[in-house]
Amino acid sequence: MSTKKVEFISSRENECIKRVKKLHDKKYREEFRSFIIEGLKLVKEAIEYQIECINLVIFSQQAKEKYQEFFEECKYLLQDGKIKRVIEVPDKLFEYITTTSTPQGILAECIFVDKDINFIKNLRRVVIADNLQDPGNLGTLIRCADAFGFDAVVTTKGTVDIYNPKTTRATMGSLFHLQIMREAEEGKLIKILKDNSFAVYVATPYGDIEISKIVPDKRFCIVIGNESEGVSDSFAKVATRKIKIPMVGKTESLNAAVAASIVLYELRKR
Amino acid sequence: MSTKKVEFISSRENECIKRVKKLHDKKYREEFRSFIIEGLKLVKEAIEYQIECINLVIFSQQAKEKYQEFFEECKYLLQDGKIKRVIEVPDKLFEYITTTSTPQGILAECIFVDKDINFIKNLRRVVIADNLQDPGNLGTLIRCADAFGFDAVVTTKGTVDIYNPKTTRATMGSLFHLQIMREAEEGKLIKILKDNSFAVYVATPYGDIEISKIVPDKRFCIVIGNESEGVSDSFAKVATRKIKIPMVGKTESLNAAVAASIVLYELRKR
Repeated sequence: MSTKKVEFISSRENECIKRVKKLHDKKYREEFRSFIIEGLKLVKEAIEYQIECINLVIFSQQAKEKYQEFFEECKYLLQDGKIKRVIEVPDKLFEYITTTSTPQGILAECIFVDKDINFIKNLRRVVIADNLQDPGNLGTLIRCADAFGFDAVVTTKGTVDIYNPKTTRATMGSLFHLQIMREAEEGKLIKILKDNSFAVYVATPYGDIEISKIVPDKRFCIVIGNESEGVSDSFAKVATRKIKIPMVGKTESLNAAVAASIVLYELRKR
Repeated sequence: MSTKKVEFISSRENECIKRVKKLHDKKYREEFRSFIIEGLKLVKEAIEYQIECINLVIFSQQAKEKYQEFFEECKYLLQDGKIKRVIEVPDKLFEYITTTSTPQGILAECIFVDKDINFIKNLRRVVIADNLQDPGNLGTLIRCADAFGFDAVVTTKGTVDIYNPKTTRATMGSLFHLQIMREAEEGKLIKILKDNSFAVYVATPYGDIEISKIVPDKRFCIVIGNESEGVSDSFAKVATRKIKIPMVGKTESLNAAVAASIVLYELRKR
Protein backbone atom coordinates (compact mmCIF):
# COMPACT_ATOMS: atom_id res chain seq x y z
CA MET A 1 0.00 0.00 0.00
CA SER A 2 1.30 3.42 -0.96
CA THR A 3 0.24 6.47 1.01
CA LYS A 4 -1.19 8.30 -1.99
CA LYS A 5 -4.10 10.55 -1.12
CA VAL A 6 -6.96 12.07 -3.08
CA GLU A 7 -5.93 15.57 -4.15
CA PHE A 8 -8.19 18.58 -3.92
CA ILE A 9 -7.83 21.17 -6.66
CA SER A 10 -9.85 24.36 -6.83
CA SER A 11 -7.99 26.60 -9.27
CA ARG A 12 -8.37 26.89 -13.02
CA GLU A 13 -4.70 27.74 -13.12
CA ASN A 14 -3.65 24.34 -11.84
CA GLU A 15 -1.51 22.54 -14.46
CA CYS A 16 -3.66 19.44 -14.41
CA ILE A 17 -6.90 21.41 -14.89
CA LYS A 18 -5.29 23.36 -17.72
CA ARG A 19 -4.21 20.13 -19.42
CA VAL A 20 -7.65 18.53 -19.13
CA LYS A 21 -9.26 21.63 -20.58
CA LYS A 22 -6.80 21.57 -23.48
CA LEU A 23 -7.68 17.94 -24.22
CA HIS A 24 -11.01 19.12 -25.63
CA ASP A 25 -8.93 19.98 -28.72
CA LYS A 26 -7.49 17.36 -31.04
CA LYS A 27 -4.29 19.40 -31.39
CA TYR A 28 -3.48 19.01 -27.72
CA ARG A 29 -4.61 15.38 -27.64
CA GLU A 30 -1.96 14.67 -30.27
CA GLU A 31 0.63 16.66 -28.33
CA PHE A 32 -0.05 14.98 -24.99
CA ARG A 33 -0.95 11.59 -26.50
CA SER A 34 -3.91 11.43 -24.13
CA PHE A 35 -7.68 12.01 -24.17
CA ILE A 36 -10.57 12.44 -21.77
CA ILE A 37 -13.51 10.18 -21.11
CA GLU A 38 -16.55 11.16 -19.10
CA GLY A 39 -19.28 9.53 -17.07
CA LEU A 40 -19.55 6.63 -14.65
CA LYS A 41 -20.00 3.94 -17.30
CA LEU A 42 -17.01 4.92 -19.46
CA VAL A 43 -14.58 5.42 -16.58
CA LYS A 44 -15.67 2.08 -15.04
CA GLU A 45 -15.04 0.32 -18.36
CA ALA A 46 -11.59 1.89 -18.64
CA ILE A 47 -10.76 0.71 -15.12
CA GLU A 48 -12.02 -2.79 -15.79
CA TYR A 49 -10.34 -3.30 -19.15
CA GLN A 50 -7.41 -0.92 -19.53
CA ILE A 51 -6.60 0.51 -16.13
CA GLU A 52 -2.96 1.05 -17.15
CA CYS A 53 -4.08 3.75 -19.61
CA ILE A 54 -5.62 5.94 -16.89
CA ASN A 55 -3.60 8.98 -15.90
CA LEU A 56 -6.06 10.46 -13.47
CA VAL A 57 -9.68 10.41 -12.39
CA ILE A 58 -11.54 13.59 -11.43
CA PHE A 59 -14.70 13.76 -9.30
CA SER A 60 -16.85 16.81 -8.71
CA GLN A 61 -17.84 17.18 -5.07
CA GLN A 62 -21.42 16.33 -5.94
CA ALA A 63 -20.34 13.18 -7.80
CA LYS A 64 -18.15 12.14 -4.87
CA GLU A 65 -21.29 12.06 -2.71
CA LYS A 66 -23.58 10.58 -5.33
CA TYR A 67 -21.23 7.82 -6.51
CA GLN A 68 -19.67 7.17 -3.11
CA GLU A 69 -19.07 3.49 -3.72
CA PHE A 70 -17.22 4.14 -6.96
CA PHE A 71 -15.26 6.96 -5.34
CA GLU A 72 -14.14 4.55 -2.61
CA GLU A 73 -13.11 2.04 -5.26
CA CYS A 74 -10.96 4.67 -6.97
CA LYS A 75 -9.41 5.64 -3.63
CA TYR A 76 -8.54 2.02 -3.06
CA LEU A 77 -7.01 1.68 -6.53
CA LEU A 78 -5.01 4.84 -5.87
CA GLN A 79 -3.61 3.49 -2.61
CA ASP A 80 -2.92 0.24 -4.38
CA GLY A 81 -0.92 2.09 -7.01
CA LYS A 82 -3.25 1.01 -9.85
CA ILE A 83 -4.45 4.55 -10.59
CA LYS A 84 -1.88 7.34 -10.53
CA ARG A 85 -4.02 10.26 -9.36
CA VAL A 86 -7.54 10.82 -8.02
CA ILE A 87 -8.67 14.43 -7.85
CA GLU A 88 -11.64 16.14 -6.27
CA VAL A 89 -12.79 19.51 -7.62
CA PRO A 90 -15.61 21.95 -6.76
CA ASP A 91 -18.72 21.50 -8.91
CA LYS A 92 -18.10 24.85 -10.59
CA LEU A 93 -14.60 23.81 -11.64
CA PHE A 94 -15.94 20.53 -12.99
CA GLU A 95 -18.38 22.47 -15.14
CA TYR A 96 -15.37 24.30 -16.54
CA ILE A 97 -13.61 21.12 -17.69
CA THR A 98 -16.56 18.95 -18.70
CA THR A 99 -17.15 18.02 -22.35
CA THR A 100 -20.89 17.47 -21.95
CA SER A 101 -23.90 19.68 -21.29
CA THR A 102 -25.23 17.33 -18.61
CA PRO A 103 -22.10 16.16 -16.77
CA GLN A 104 -22.20 13.29 -14.27
CA GLY A 105 -19.18 14.77 -12.50
CA ILE A 106 -16.74 11.95 -13.28
CA LEU A 107 -13.95 12.30 -15.82
CA ALA A 108 -10.67 10.56 -16.54
CA GLU A 109 -7.61 11.33 -18.58
CA CYS A 110 -6.34 8.29 -20.48
CA ILE A 111 -3.21 7.64 -22.49
CA PHE A 112 -3.90 6.81 -26.16
CA VAL A 113 -4.94 3.16 -26.48
CA ASP A 114 -4.42 2.69 -30.22
CA LYS A 115 -1.90 0.28 -31.67
CA ASP A 116 0.46 0.47 -34.62
CA ILE A 117 -1.19 -0.46 -37.91
CA ASN A 118 1.11 -3.46 -38.34
CA PHE A 119 -0.67 -5.06 -35.40
CA ILE A 120 -3.39 -5.92 -37.91
CA LYS A 121 -1.31 -8.95 -38.89
CA ASN A 122 -2.39 -10.66 -35.67
CA LEU A 123 -6.08 -10.23 -36.36
CA ARG A 124 -8.84 -11.93 -38.34
CA ARG A 125 -11.97 -9.82 -38.21
CA VAL A 126 -11.44 -6.14 -38.75
CA VAL A 127 -13.74 -3.15 -39.27
CA ILE A 128 -12.36 -0.24 -41.27
CA ALA A 129 -13.94 3.20 -40.85
CA ASP A 130 -13.08 5.02 -44.07
CA ASN A 131 -13.69 8.78 -43.89
CA LEU A 132 -16.56 8.58 -41.44
CA GLN A 133 -17.36 12.14 -40.37
CA ASP A 134 -19.84 11.96 -37.54
CA PRO A 135 -18.31 11.25 -34.10
CA GLY A 136 -21.52 9.59 -32.91
CA ASN A 137 -21.55 7.27 -35.92
CA LEU A 138 -17.94 6.23 -35.31
CA GLY A 139 -18.69 5.55 -31.64
CA THR A 140 -21.74 3.50 -32.55
CA LEU A 141 -19.67 1.56 -35.08
CA ILE A 142 -17.09 0.69 -32.42
CA ARG A 143 -19.86 -0.41 -30.04
CA CYS A 144 -21.34 -2.65 -32.75
CA ALA A 145 -17.95 -4.08 -33.70
CA ASP A 146 -17.60 -5.10 -30.07
CA ALA A 147 -21.11 -6.55 -29.79
CA PHE A 148 -20.63 -8.66 -32.90
CA GLY A 149 -17.23 -10.11 -32.07
CA PHE A 150 -14.82 -8.15 -34.26
CA ASP A 151 -11.18 -7.94 -33.21
CA ALA A 152 -10.45 -4.36 -34.16
CA VAL A 153 -11.59 -1.06 -35.62
CA VAL A 154 -9.19 0.81 -37.89
CA THR A 155 -9.84 4.41 -38.93
CA THR A 156 -8.31 5.96 -42.03
CA LYS A 157 -6.81 9.43 -42.24
CA GLY A 158 -9.74 11.79 -42.76
CA THR A 159 -12.03 9.92 -40.41
CA VAL A 160 -13.25 11.81 -37.35
CA ASP A 161 -10.97 11.43 -34.31
CA ILE A 162 -11.58 8.27 -32.33
CA TYR A 163 -10.69 10.27 -29.18
CA ASN A 164 -13.29 12.96 -29.81
CA PRO A 165 -15.38 13.06 -26.58
CA LYS A 166 -18.57 12.48 -28.59
CA THR A 167 -17.04 9.36 -30.12
CA THR A 168 -15.79 7.88 -26.86
CA ARG A 169 -19.18 8.54 -25.29
CA ALA A 170 -21.02 6.74 -28.09
CA THR A 171 -18.74 3.70 -27.75
CA MET A 172 -20.13 3.18 -24.24
CA GLY A 173 -16.77 1.69 -23.29
CA SER A 174 -16.31 -0.62 -26.28
CA LEU A 175 -13.28 1.53 -27.11
CA PHE A 176 -11.53 -0.37 -24.31
CA HIS A 177 -12.78 -3.81 -25.35
CA LEU A 178 -11.22 -4.21 -28.77
CA GLN A 179 -8.11 -3.23 -30.67
CA ILE A 180 -7.97 0.25 -32.13
CA MET A 181 -5.73 1.48 -34.94
CA ARG A 182 -6.19 5.02 -36.08
CA GLU A 183 -5.60 7.42 -38.95
CA ALA A 184 -4.04 4.80 -41.18
CA GLU A 185 -2.75 5.98 -44.52
CA GLU A 186 -5.00 4.21 -47.07
CA GLY A 187 -2.27 2.96 -49.40
CA LYS A 188 -0.26 1.50 -46.58
CA LEU A 189 -3.31 -0.07 -44.99
CA ILE A 190 -4.36 -1.71 -48.25
CA LYS A 191 -0.86 -3.11 -48.73
CA ILE A 192 -0.85 -4.66 -45.27
CA LEU A 193 -4.30 -6.14 -45.85
CA LYS A 194 -3.23 -7.67 -49.17
CA ASP A 195 0.12 -8.92 -47.81
CA ASN A 196 -1.77 -10.68 -45.05
CA SER A 197 -4.47 -12.20 -47.27
CA PHE A 198 -7.42 -10.31 -45.88
CA ALA A 199 -10.59 -10.53 -47.92
CA VAL A 200 -11.79 -6.94 -48.40
CA TYR A 201 -15.56 -6.43 -48.20
CA VAL A 202 -16.96 -3.02 -48.90
CA ALA A 203 -20.48 -1.99 -47.95
CA THR A 204 -22.21 0.03 -50.68
CA PRO A 205 -25.75 0.62 -51.98
CA TYR A 206 -24.32 -0.45 -55.37
CA GLY A 207 -23.14 -3.81 -54.10
CA ASP A 208 -23.64 -6.91 -56.25
CA ILE A 209 -24.30 -9.36 -53.46
CA GLU A 210 -26.73 -9.17 -50.57
CA ILE A 211 -25.10 -9.14 -47.18
CA SER A 212 -27.13 -12.15 -46.00
CA LYS A 213 -25.60 -14.28 -48.78
CA ILE A 214 -22.01 -13.69 -47.66
CA VAL A 215 -20.15 -16.54 -46.00
CA PRO A 216 -17.26 -14.64 -44.44
CA ASP A 217 -13.69 -15.68 -45.25
CA LYS A 218 -11.54 -16.80 -42.34
CA ARG A 219 -9.74 -13.50 -42.49
CA PHE A 220 -11.55 -10.40 -43.62
CA CYS A 221 -12.09 -6.71 -43.19
CA ILE A 222 -15.30 -4.82 -43.80
CA VAL A 223 -14.96 -1.25 -45.01
CA ILE A 224 -17.62 1.28 -43.90
CA GLY A 225 -17.48 4.47 -45.93
CA ASN A 226 -18.32 8.13 -45.56
CA GLU A 227 -21.94 9.04 -44.65
CA SER A 228 -22.71 10.71 -47.97
CA GLU A 229 -19.93 9.69 -50.38
CA GLY A 230 -19.64 6.04 -49.38
CA VAL A 231 -16.45 4.00 -49.61
CA SER A 232 -13.44 5.68 -51.24
CA ASP A 233 -12.19 4.61 -54.67
CA SER A 234 -9.02 3.02 -53.35
CA PHE A 235 -11.01 0.52 -51.32
CA ALA A 236 -13.67 0.04 -53.99
CA LYS A 237 -10.88 -0.94 -56.41
CA VAL A 238 -9.41 -3.66 -54.21
CA ALA A 239 -12.72 -5.01 -52.93
CA THR A 240 -13.08 -8.79 -52.84
CA ARG A 241 -16.86 -8.36 -52.54
CA LYS A 242 -19.17 -5.36 -52.79
CA ILE A 243 -22.09 -6.01 -50.51
CA LYS A 244 -25.44 -4.35 -50.13
CA ILE A 245 -28.38 -4.42 -47.77
CA PRO A 246 -31.64 -5.58 -49.36
CA MET A 247 -34.36 -2.92 -49.23
CA VAL A 248 -37.93 -3.29 -50.40
CA GLY A 249 -39.73 -0.06 -49.48
CA LYS A 250 -40.02 3.36 -51.08
CA THR A 251 -36.87 4.69 -49.47
CA GLU A 252 -33.54 4.20 -51.19
CA SER A 253 -31.29 4.62 -48.20
CA LEU A 254 -30.70 3.93 -44.54
CA ASN A 255 -29.12 6.06 -41.82
CA ALA A 256 -25.34 5.49 -42.08
CA ALA A 257 -24.90 4.14 -38.54
CA VAL A 258 -27.85 1.82 -39.02
CA ALA A 259 -26.59 0.47 -42.34
CA ALA A 260 -23.14 -0.19 -40.86
CA SER A 261 -24.67 -1.96 -37.87
CA ILE A 262 -26.71 -4.30 -40.03
CA VAL A 263 -23.62 -5.19 -42.04
CA LEU A 264 -21.59 -5.94 -38.89
CA TYR A 265 -24.50 -7.93 -37.50
CA GLU A 266 -24.62 -10.15 -40.58
CA LEU A 267 -20.84 -10.67 -40.46
CA ARG A 268 -20.88 -11.39 -36.72
CA LYS A 269 -18.85 -14.14 -35.14
CA ARG A 270 -21.02 -17.23 -34.84
CA MET B 1 -55.14 26.50 -64.62
CA SER B 2 -56.00 28.81 -61.75
CA THR B 3 -54.45 32.22 -61.51
CA LYS B 4 -52.90 31.58 -58.11
CA LYS B 5 -49.65 33.46 -57.58
CA VAL B 6 -46.70 33.05 -55.26
CA GLU B 7 -47.27 35.28 -52.23
CA PHE B 8 -44.60 37.45 -50.71
CA ILE B 9 -44.72 37.85 -46.93
CA SER B 10 -42.28 39.96 -44.96
CA SER B 11 -43.92 40.50 -41.57
CA ARG B 12 -43.70 38.38 -38.45
CA GLU B 13 -47.22 39.54 -37.66
CA ASN B 14 -48.68 37.81 -40.70
CA GLU B 15 -51.18 35.14 -39.62
CA CYS B 16 -49.49 32.45 -41.65
CA ILE B 17 -46.03 33.19 -40.20
CA LYS B 18 -47.47 33.25 -36.71
CA ARG B 19 -49.09 29.86 -37.25
CA VAL B 20 -45.92 28.26 -38.63
CA LYS B 21 -43.97 29.58 -35.66
CA LYS B 22 -46.54 28.12 -33.27
CA LEU B 23 -46.23 24.71 -34.94
CA HIS B 24 -42.85 24.29 -33.26
CA ASP B 25 -44.93 23.39 -30.18
CA LYS B 26 -46.84 20.15 -29.88
CA LYS B 27 -49.71 22.00 -28.18
CA TYR B 28 -50.40 24.03 -31.32
CA ARG B 29 -49.81 21.08 -33.65
CA GLU B 30 -52.66 19.33 -31.85
CA GLU B 31 -54.83 22.43 -32.06
CA PHE B 32 -54.25 23.05 -35.77
CA ARG B 33 -53.91 19.34 -36.68
CA SER B 34 -50.89 20.23 -38.78
CA PHE B 35 -47.08 20.12 -38.59
CA ILE B 36 -44.05 21.47 -40.37
CA ILE B 37 -41.42 19.69 -42.40
CA GLU B 38 -38.17 21.22 -43.55
CA GLY B 39 -35.60 20.77 -46.26
CA LEU B 40 -35.65 19.93 -49.96
CA LYS B 41 -35.71 16.16 -49.51
CA LEU B 42 -38.63 16.07 -47.07
CA VAL B 43 -40.80 18.54 -48.94
CA LYS B 44 -40.14 16.71 -52.22
CA GLU B 45 -41.16 13.40 -50.65
CA ALA B 46 -44.35 14.98 -49.30
CA ILE B 47 -45.18 16.31 -52.77
CA GLU B 48 -44.48 12.98 -54.42
CA TYR B 49 -46.39 10.78 -51.98
CA GLN B 50 -48.97 12.85 -50.11
CA ILE B 51 -49.41 16.14 -51.89
CA GLU B 52 -52.96 16.48 -50.60
CA CYS B 53 -51.61 16.95 -47.05
CA ILE B 54 -49.63 20.07 -47.96
CA ASN B 55 -51.16 23.36 -46.81
CA LEU B 56 -48.36 25.61 -47.95
CA VAL B 57 -44.72 25.70 -49.02
CA ILE B 58 -42.38 28.50 -47.93
CA PHE B 59 -39.13 29.47 -49.67
CA SER B 60 -36.53 31.87 -48.38
CA GLN B 61 -35.30 34.25 -51.09
CA GLN B 62 -31.94 32.52 -51.09
CA ALA B 63 -33.55 29.08 -51.47
CA LYS B 64 -35.72 30.37 -54.32
CA GLU B 65 -32.51 31.16 -56.22
CA LYS B 66 -30.61 28.08 -55.14
CA TYR B 67 -33.38 25.55 -55.78
CA GLN B 68 -34.85 27.31 -58.78
CA GLU B 69 -36.00 24.16 -60.53
CA PHE B 70 -37.90 22.99 -57.47
CA PHE B 71 -39.35 26.47 -56.96
CA GLU B 72 -40.65 26.40 -60.54
CA GLU B 73 -42.17 22.98 -59.92
CA CYS B 74 -43.98 24.30 -56.85
CA LYS B 75 -45.23 27.31 -58.84
CA TYR B 76 -46.60 24.95 -61.46
CA LEU B 77 -48.31 22.80 -58.82
CA LEU B 78 -49.82 25.96 -57.34
CA GLN B 79 -51.23 27.08 -60.68
CA ASP B 80 -52.49 23.56 -61.21
CA GLY B 81 -54.30 23.71 -57.85
CA LYS B 82 -52.30 20.82 -56.42
CA ILE B 83 -50.63 22.95 -53.73
CA LYS B 84 -52.79 25.56 -51.98
CA ARG B 85 -50.20 28.22 -51.22
CA VAL B 86 -46.56 28.96 -52.13
CA ILE B 87 -44.91 31.73 -50.13
CA GLU B 88 -41.67 33.60 -50.47
CA VAL B 89 -40.10 35.25 -47.43
CA PRO B 90 -36.93 37.27 -46.75
CA ASP B 91 -34.02 35.15 -45.47
CA LYS B 92 -34.25 36.84 -42.07
CA LEU B 93 -37.90 35.91 -41.69
CA PHE B 94 -37.11 32.33 -42.68
CA GLU B 95 -34.54 32.18 -39.92
CA TYR B 96 -37.31 33.21 -37.54
CA ILE B 97 -39.59 30.29 -38.48
CA THR B 98 -37.04 27.54 -39.13
CA THR B 99 -36.77 24.53 -36.83
CA THR B 100 -33.12 23.80 -37.66
CA SER B 101 -29.82 25.47 -36.98
CA THR B 102 -28.68 25.06 -40.60
CA PRO B 103 -31.86 25.74 -42.62
CA GLN B 104 -32.06 24.99 -46.35
CA GLY B 105 -34.71 27.65 -46.73
CA ILE B 106 -37.58 25.33 -47.68
CA LEU B 107 -40.41 24.48 -45.34
CA ALA B 108 -43.95 23.16 -45.67
CA GLU B 109 -46.97 22.98 -43.44
CA CYS B 110 -48.75 19.64 -43.71
CA ILE B 111 -52.04 18.37 -42.37
CA PHE B 112 -51.67 15.40 -39.99
CA VAL B 113 -51.19 12.20 -42.00
CA ASP B 114 -51.95 9.64 -39.29
CA LYS B 115 -54.86 7.26 -39.48
CA ASP B 116 -57.32 5.95 -36.92
CA ILE B 117 -55.99 2.99 -34.95
CA ASN B 118 -58.72 0.71 -36.31
CA PHE B 119 -57.04 0.98 -39.70
CA ILE B 120 -54.59 -1.61 -38.36
CA LYS B 121 -57.15 -4.27 -39.30
CA ASN B 122 -56.17 -3.82 -42.94
CA LEU B 123 -52.48 -4.42 -42.34
CA ARG B 124 -50.11 -7.34 -41.93
CA ARG B 125 -46.69 -6.10 -40.90
CA VAL B 126 -46.72 -3.46 -38.20
CA VAL B 127 -44.03 -1.79 -36.09
CA ILE B 128 -45.09 -0.52 -32.67
CA ALA B 129 -43.00 2.19 -30.99
CA ASP B 130 -43.76 1.80 -27.31
CA ASN B 131 -42.61 4.75 -25.19
CA LEU B 132 -39.67 5.67 -27.39
CA GLN B 133 -38.33 8.99 -26.11
CA ASP B 134 -35.76 10.21 -28.61
CA PRO B 135 -37.18 11.95 -31.69
CA GLY B 136 -34.19 10.89 -33.80
CA ASN B 137 -34.65 7.26 -32.82
CA LEU B 138 -38.34 7.35 -33.75
CA GLY B 139 -37.52 8.93 -37.10
CA THR B 140 -34.82 6.34 -37.79
CA LEU B 141 -37.28 3.58 -36.86
CA ILE B 142 -39.83 4.89 -39.37
CA ARG B 143 -37.13 5.07 -42.06
CA CYS B 144 -36.12 1.46 -41.36
CA ALA B 145 -39.72 0.26 -41.29
CA ASP B 146 -40.04 1.72 -44.77
CA ALA B 147 -36.76 0.22 -46.04
CA PHE B 148 -37.71 -3.23 -44.83
CA GLY B 149 -41.22 -3.35 -46.18
CA PHE B 150 -43.43 -2.80 -43.16
CA ASP B 151 -46.95 -1.48 -43.69
CA ALA B 152 -47.19 0.86 -40.73
CA VAL B 153 -45.67 2.38 -37.63
CA VAL B 154 -47.88 2.82 -34.58
CA THR B 155 -46.78 4.91 -31.59
CA THR B 156 -48.23 4.46 -28.12
CA LYS B 157 -49.22 7.27 -25.75
CA GLY B 158 -46.01 8.36 -24.04
CA THR B 159 -43.90 7.99 -27.18
CA VAL B 160 -42.29 11.15 -28.51
CA ASP B 161 -44.44 13.03 -31.05
CA ILE B 162 -44.19 11.67 -34.57
CA TYR B 163 -44.62 15.27 -35.81
CA ASN B 164 -41.68 16.62 -33.81
CA PRO B 165 -39.44 18.36 -36.40
CA LYS B 166 -36.47 16.20 -35.32
CA THR B 167 -38.51 13.07 -35.92
CA THR B 168 -39.80 14.08 -39.34
CA ARG B 169 -36.26 15.07 -40.36
CA ALA B 170 -34.84 11.68 -39.31
CA THR B 171 -37.54 9.85 -41.30
CA MET B 172 -36.05 11.38 -44.49
CA GLY B 173 -39.53 11.27 -45.98
CA SER B 174 -40.48 7.71 -45.00
CA LEU B 175 -43.20 9.32 -42.88
CA PHE B 176 -45.06 9.81 -46.17
CA HIS B 177 -44.39 6.30 -47.49
CA LEU B 178 -46.15 4.12 -44.96
CA GLN B 179 -49.18 4.20 -42.71
CA ILE B 180 -48.89 6.05 -39.43
CA MET B 181 -51.07 5.63 -36.34
CA ARG B 182 -50.17 7.65 -33.29
CA GLU B 183 -50.54 7.86 -29.54
CA ALA B 184 -52.57 4.68 -29.29
CA GLU B 185 -53.84 3.76 -25.86
CA GLU B 186 -52.01 0.53 -25.02
CA GLY B 187 -55.00 -1.49 -23.77
CA LYS B 188 -57.07 -0.60 -26.80
CA LEU B 189 -54.19 -1.31 -29.18
CA ILE B 190 -53.55 -4.74 -27.64
CA LYS B 191 -57.24 -5.62 -27.92
CA ILE B 192 -57.30 -4.71 -31.61
CA LEU B 193 -54.13 -6.75 -32.23
CA LYS B 194 -55.59 -9.79 -30.46
CA ASP B 195 -59.00 -9.44 -32.13
CA ASN B 196 -57.25 -9.43 -35.48
CA SER B 197 -54.93 -12.36 -34.78
CA PHE B 198 -51.65 -10.45 -34.90
CA ALA B 199 -48.64 -12.34 -33.54
CA VAL B 200 -46.97 -9.99 -31.06
CA TYR B 201 -43.17 -10.02 -31.09
CA VAL B 202 -41.32 -7.98 -28.52
CA ALA B 203 -37.64 -7.11 -28.81
CA THR B 204 -35.80 -7.45 -25.51
CA PRO B 205 -32.27 -8.28 -24.29
CA TYR B 206 -33.99 -10.96 -22.17
CA GLY B 207 -35.59 -12.66 -25.15
CA ASP B 208 -35.65 -16.44 -25.35
CA ILE B 209 -35.21 -16.76 -29.09
CA GLU B 210 -32.63 -15.22 -31.38
CA ILE B 211 -34.05 -12.90 -34.00
CA SER B 212 -32.44 -14.84 -36.84
CA LYS B 213 -34.41 -17.96 -35.85
CA ILE B 214 -37.80 -16.30 -36.22
CA VAL B 215 -39.98 -17.27 -39.15
CA PRO B 216 -42.49 -14.40 -39.13
CA ASP B 217 -46.19 -15.18 -38.94
CA LYS B 218 -48.34 -13.99 -41.81
CA ARG B 219 -49.65 -11.22 -39.63
CA PHE B 220 -47.48 -9.75 -36.93
CA CYS B 221 -46.38 -6.69 -35.06
CA ILE B 222 -42.96 -6.05 -33.59
CA VAL B 223 -42.84 -3.95 -30.43
CA ILE B 224 -39.80 -1.69 -29.91
CA GLY B 225 -39.60 -0.40 -26.36
CA ASN B 226 -38.20 2.57 -24.47
CA GLU B 227 -34.46 3.30 -24.83
CA SER B 228 -33.62 2.49 -21.22
CA GLU B 229 -36.63 0.64 -19.81
CA GLY B 230 -37.38 -1.57 -22.78
CA VAL B 231 -40.85 -2.83 -23.68
CA SER B 232 -43.67 -2.08 -21.23
CA ASP B 233 -45.24 -4.82 -19.08
CA SER B 234 -48.54 -4.80 -20.93
CA PHE B 235 -46.81 -5.81 -24.18
CA ALA B 236 -44.39 -8.20 -22.47
CA LYS B 237 -47.40 -10.02 -21.02
CA VAL B 238 -49.16 -10.60 -24.33
CA ALA B 239 -46.00 -11.36 -26.34
CA THR B 240 -46.19 -14.31 -28.72
CA ARG B 241 -42.36 -14.33 -28.88
CA LYS B 242 -39.67 -12.49 -26.98
CA ILE B 243 -36.77 -12.03 -29.32
CA LYS B 244 -33.18 -10.98 -28.75
CA ILE B 245 -30.16 -10.03 -30.80
CA PRO B 246 -27.18 -12.37 -30.42
CA MET B 247 -24.10 -10.61 -29.04
CA VAL B 248 -20.69 -12.12 -28.51
CA GLY B 249 -18.38 -9.30 -27.36
CA LYS B 250 -17.70 -7.65 -24.04
CA THR B 251 -20.54 -5.17 -24.37
CA GLU B 252 -23.98 -6.14 -23.14
CA SER B 253 -26.00 -3.67 -25.13
CA LEU B 254 -26.52 -1.88 -28.42
CA ASN B 255 -27.63 1.66 -29.21
CA ALA B 256 -31.46 1.61 -29.15
CA ALA B 257 -31.94 2.74 -32.76
CA VAL B 258 -29.36 0.22 -33.96
CA ALA B 259 -30.96 -2.67 -32.07
CA ALA B 260 -34.39 -1.79 -33.47
CA SER B 261 -32.99 -1.58 -36.99
CA ILE B 262 -31.42 -5.02 -36.82
CA VAL B 263 -34.70 -6.49 -35.61
CA LEU B 264 -36.66 -4.87 -38.45
CA TYR B 265 -34.00 -6.00 -40.91
CA GLU B 266 -34.37 -9.63 -39.83
CA LEU B 267 -38.16 -9.41 -40.05
CA ARG B 268 -38.03 -7.72 -43.44
CA LYS B 269 -40.36 -8.60 -46.27
CA ARG B 270 -38.66 -11.19 -48.49
